[in-house]
Amino acid sequence: MAAQVNIVLLGLGVVGGGVAGALRERADTYSQRVGASLALRRVLVRHLDKERAVKLDPSLLTDDAEEAVSGDVDIVVELLGGEHPAYGLIRDALSRGRYVVTANKEVMAKHGPELLSLAAEKGVDILYEASVGGGIPIISPLKRDLSANEISSVRAIINGTTNYILTRMSRDGLDFATALAQAQQLGYAEADPTNDIDGHDAAYKLAILASLAFHTHIGPDDIRREGISGLAARDFRYARELGYAIKLLAVARREGSSLQVRVHPTLVPEEQLLAKVDGVLNAVQIEGDLSGRVLFQGAGAGSLPTTSAVMADVLDAARAIVQGGRPFPWRYTDEVAIKPLAELVTRYYIRLEVVDRPGVLAGIARAFGDHEVSIASVIQKETDEAAQTAELVIMTHPAREEAVQATAVQVRDLPEVVSIGNLLRVDD
Amino acid sequence: MAAQVNIVLLGLGVVGGGVAGALRERADTYSQRVGASLALRRVLVRHLDKERAVKLDPSLLTDDAEEAVSGDVDIVVELLGGEHPAYGLIRDALSRGRYVVTANKEVMAKHGPELLSLAAEKGVDILYEASVGGGIPIISPLKRDLSANEISSVRAIINGTTNYILTRMSRDGLDFATALAQAQQLGYAEADPTNDIDGHDAAYKLAILASLAFHTHIGPDDIRREGISGLAARDFRYARELGYAIKLLAVARREGSSLQVRVHPTLVPEEQLLAKVDGVLNAVQIEGDLSGRVLFQGAGAGSLPTTSAVMADVLDAARAIVQGGRPFPWRYTDEVAIKPLAELVTRYYIRLEVVDRPGVLAGIARAFGDHEVSIASVIQKETDEAAQTAELVIMTHPAREEAVQATAVQVRDLPEVVSIGNLLRVDD
Repeated sequence: MAAQVNIVLLGLGVVGGGVAGALRERADTYSQRVGASLALRRVLVRHLDKERAVKLDPSLLTDDAEEAVSGDVDIVVELLGGEHPAYGLIRDALSRGRYVVTANKEVMAKHGPELLSLAAEKGVDILYEASVGGGIPIISPLKRDLSANEISSVRAIINGTTNYILTRMSRDGLDFATALAQAQQLGYAEADPTNDIDGHDAAYKLAILASLAFHTHIGPDDIRREGISGLAARDFRYARELGYAIKLLAVARREGSSLQVRVHPTLVPEEQLLAKVDGVLNAVQIEGDLSGRVLFQGAGAGSLPTTSAVMADVLDAARAIVQGGRPFPWRYTDEVAIKPLAELVTRYYIRLEVVDRPGVLAGIARAFGDHEVSIASVIQKETDEAAQTAELVIMTHPAREEAVQATAVQVRDLPEVVSIGNLLRVDD
Repeated sequence: MAAQVNIVLLGLGVVGGGVAGALRERADTYSQRVGASLALRRVLVRHLDKERAVKLDPSLLTDDAEEAVSGDVDIVVELLGGEHPAYGLIRDALSRGRYVVTANKEVMAKHGPELLSLAAEKGVDILYEASVGGGIPIISPLKRDLSANEISSVRAIINGTTNYILTRMSRDGLDFATALAQAQQLGYAEADPTNDIDGHDAAYKLAILASLAFHTHIGPDDIRREGISGLAARDFRYARELGYAIKLLAVARREGSSLQVRVHPTLVPEEQLLAKVDGVLNAVQIEGDLSGRVLFQGAGAGSLPTTSAVMADVLDAARAIVQGGRPFPWRYTDEVAIKPLAELVTRYYIRLEVVDRPGVLAGIARAFGDHEVSIASVIQKETDEAAQTAELVIMTHPAREEAVQATAVQVRDLPEVVSIGNLLRVDD
């Protein structure tokens, strides 16, 4: 039994504090579960004198990155977040032959392949369960438990902030700005919420999941992305009448030899479990050709859930160190083309504001027909008598994105159409 | 790179056929994912001449167990099911220093600790992801991904047959016998359905999950078990009116230093995801002190989903063999006392058939009061005018099982009570 596994923590924020606390309070349990004691040797912080919730021996703290990772270190746990300096520190740690555990979705989405190769070359591993879905096991199930499958799709709600906002808009009829403000008050959204509401965070996570599921490298730039700020409370009401919830869905789906990868607000049939995942919860549904649909659900963020994932990786790395043997190198073996969004075929929800007079529908229907987009249903919604306008909600049969976008351009220019309120994709 | 990993299959039934097919059809993919080719060397069958869906080279088949496992074998995959001869063959394979992959819940529930110790002693491993929940990853998440947590509860729907029957009774108002007969026609229930409907199958699986979750050994005999045959269609109707679904729930819950472990029909609040798991689907919810509640859901049985789990373990064992190092031995470290069911404290649903006349409730209420069981609500349900009887549904506040059972005995003997229709536990 190795006497001791030495751990260095980079960052002592919300998650770092949780990890440091777990290592201290659960030392006996973890040593039993690993077969060696886990020693926290150093913690890299920005400000040595800051007040912190977790009380650590001040001599463990350093603000010098080089000092933090030098000497006798087995596992480097990176919890700084953001691309820099995290990326450089991780690369440095792997180069020195250390195991790395990270919660960093941006670094893994952008530099995953390079870092995984480097780890393999050095006979160590980089583990990143905490980078997606907080406390929900999802990286390890994709790498291990579903590895006998050919995966056909990943469909996920992986941003708690937006799911909270959408849940409030749907349940309480709030408009986007009010729901966002309430999320900010509760600490679910940041002062600058761009990263969440525009779908960047979900795209990083989808890049990580899709890369694993399809054994290829999908980067954030491969993902078509739309945020949630264009949604209105009545879109949720109309969707519900049609039997759908609206979720910011991250989708990666194989179609022949190419792959759709996209993050956007999506109509999800109400009877599906994903439609019932509300509030800050996350859920990931994987469809394999053997397993069928498997769903993982739980807390996607927060200090303790993320600590659960980080510590699972730390315990795993520690066991690998204690037991010997080279970790299995993850390989991106497949070449998969990214399918342009223009070629997507799905159903669409289109909300239009039109002039309230007889015969309006004829011109609109003609525009759809011109592009061979077939209308499944049209419902006339509330009218604004003062403005003499009405609202139409159109659901199409499956159609090509390209044709639907061209239809939208033509419809928008019709004299009887005031504006296109929203155009959303459906994922049945 | 090890040239080849040699595999022996014990059993070529529904799952064995799936595994043999996957090994043959996906040879190239699996060899890439493992770093060695996987060779199916022999298959133990009962009848050499039987017609089979999967076409294998007849020279691979043997009906001699000793011949099957001798020679150059790395991994023995046991898919015979049942305690014997599987248990002896697994022990023999581990004794010879081979990795074992099994889907055998009965063997793992009864003999898990012994087999895990033997594997550790021999420097190999026994993997059993397919023993619970078919294609849903659950053993590996408990062993690895949630291992930094102290688990407080496992709540699971882990028998697809009974969940199908309960779903039909609930949705379509079928009585138990009709729903069972339909399940049998569809191949979801066996000709002798005892093992499923009396909860034995769920108890084996709960024993496996609880042993992992609580790092202790829970055997099938530790589990209090009640089947579903006493449920009536109207129990589902009444439960729904009260806001509950009825599920055959397998529950393991820590209370202080002791553990409740039980399988019985249970009222589950409708807003919980577990209440929405219908048909042959399985779901397992684990609550950890760091992770919070995490839910895993998917197909709990069937050839392909079970093949997914068996092959994940085979690939994992093959990687361990290729990469070297000793597998981490699972340790049952904790002593946990089993809490008698008599000490359970929860809410109860009690359905009574009573004489339909004024004042009946007074005697019944007195019986509850005598045992300090507090009534939360009483609803009078349909009356049978011919028999001059009525039905009462009583929900209690949280009460001790012992007191509720004593109340039931006293109530049953009241002259105004015709019978106790059902007494079910609630799990909020």
